[in-house]
Amino acid sequence: MNAFLERLGFAPEDRVVIFHADDLGMCHAMNEAFMDIVRQGFLRTGAVMVPCPWFPELAAFAREQAGALDIGVHLTLTSEWQTYRWGPISTRDPGSGLLDADGYFWRETEAVHAHMNAEAAAAELRAQIERALAAGIDVTHIDTHMGSVLHPDLALVYISLAQEYRIPAMIPRLSLDELTGMGVSREMAQTFVTMLNVLEESGTLPVVDHLRSLEEPTPDARLEKYAAVLRALPPGLTHLLFHAARPGEEIRAIAPDWPMRVADYSVFAGEGVRRLVEETGVKVLPYRALREVMRA
Amino acid sequence: MNAFLERLGFAPEDRVVIFHADDLGMCHAMNEAFMDIVRQGFLRTGAVMVPCPWFPELAAFAREQAGALDIGVHLTLTSEWQTYRWGPISTRDPGSGLLDADGYFWRETEAVHAHMNAEAAAAELRAQIERALAAGIDVTHIDTHMGSVLHPDLALVYISLAQEYRIPAMIPRLSLDELTGMGVSREMAQTFVTMLNVLEESGTLPVVDHLRSLEEPTPDARLEKYAAVLRALPPGLTHLLFHAARPGEEIRAIAPDWPMRVADYSVFAGEGVRRLVEETGVKVLPYRALREVMRA
Repeated sequence: MNAFLERLGFAPEDRVVIFHADDLGMCHAMNEAFMDIVRQGFLRTGAVMVPCPWFPELAAFAREQAGALDIGVHLTLTSEWQTYRWGPISTRDPGSGLLDADGYFWRETEAVHAHMNAEAAAAELRAQIERALAAGIDVTHIDTHMGSVLHPDLALVYISLAQEYRIPAMIPRLSLDELTGMGVSREMAQTFVTMLNVLEESGTLPVVDHLRSLEEPTPDARLEKYAAVLRALPPGLTHLLFHAARPGEEIRAIAPDWPMRVADYSVFAGEGVRRLVEETGVKVLPYRALREVMRA
Repeated sequence: MNAFLERLGFAPEDRVVIFHADDLGMCHAMNEAFMDIVRQGFLRTGAVMVPCPWFPELAAFAREQAGALDIGVHLTLTSEWQTYRWGPISTRDPGSGLLDADGYFWRETEAVHAHMNAEAAAAELRAQIERALAAGIDVTHIDTHMGSVLHPDLALVYISLAQEYRIPAMIPRLSLDELTGMGVSREMAQTFVTMLNVLEESGTLPVVDHLRSLEEPTPDARLEKYAAVLRALPPGLTHLLFHAARPGEEIRAIAPDWPMRVADYSVFAGEGVRRLVEETGVKVLPYRALREVMRA
């Protein structure tokens, strides 16, 4: 079973879920949604996009709430929307390869990987963690916006940053076949899996057994769909991510997928998720608990 | 009389007004307000803050409207709010002196002047004009957010940029006494006034005779106050600036002075300003007309 869950005293059959709010700081509507969720008193985990203009609002909320929140850095190398954009905090040098022709982060992860200078990208990731800490956020973990760290030149940077700051990095447990299916050579995949096993068993870095999200663009019956996900959940540690936004002009003007975000807000800022958790018997975990194991 | 108004065929007694929407691109609510104003068909002049995250939305609107708008660059070296912030587009080097401890532009103009490397500031101003042009905006003028170019090391940069791009810079006609009252030496003030006179008379650069704005924080009776300003207006060229925002969660969360901005929206997106112009007989001018004189 998951070595970190074992250390935390869970049983092999337990289904343990980190409910994770993505894209905090991205805009005001997503900050407000998260604040509402936290005020409900049931969930408190999410990750913030440091380069986004509303980062200061989220940081102020985190300071107010002191250690009560569970806030990670949603490491960001992309700026995906049309009307509203942001860029790196560490450089404006075109030689970094982090900037598109308009001077923002690239819109697509593929473009980041095609153009980035890996050292500049690594420096930017580190700068985002440093700025979150400097803003008074008790950073509990890191994860990756649009999967931009999933690249041979950045995956080890991501893991090294987690080790250096002694915070969990969201890393799904991938099998050899899954890794080779992603284009990783068999030898590299074997090395990677072995390394993660060693890190996990030694209590150095946790691994997430299952990654879940509802990517369908239709917002209908969102609560029922999350119910189906939770009912079907295998034992182990699940990172379940969602994107909650308060309805309003701002999110409509930014994100074409806003109806899905507003539907997530209904599920996670309301009583729906608490009832689902009670019904399905899954156990809720913050990243903070995994960090404590790493720091023990 | 004003040399540019004379060249444009106005009479000495004419009261000519540029109604100027400030802070475009700053947030979605201010973009929406300006789009509503333009759709009314009466006013079309404003200036955009290039470093702000909603610049792309305003640029897309400007491209859609092709040459029908009158859009300047609201040269920006400050980021004044608490929850929502932006920084330079040309550098992230702390040595530039353009960044505060949180990594954004300074909040106050005084702090910019105290810390800036003048060359870095000049490069940033140029980068903002270049990016607006690259985004397809037919830039008609430049002006200054929070007066940050009003510094001995930047005033000449501001004038030089206007000459180089052959676009008007919003420069109020200041008397020797006004300039010395601002702490400029008598000799510098004399040089400045003489230089502006030469530039104006030669058709190189226009000067604005009067600068008007309603800075009172109370939004009450805003239309009546603008009526009083227009009725009392002396002959010559007036730059009348306002800050219009559509009401909503976003502007409320950004700007403590949002009631004033929403009141300006009511005045300038409605029929109010058109009636005032008819009643007072002032003449409305776009910056585009001044630019044509410069480029003739």
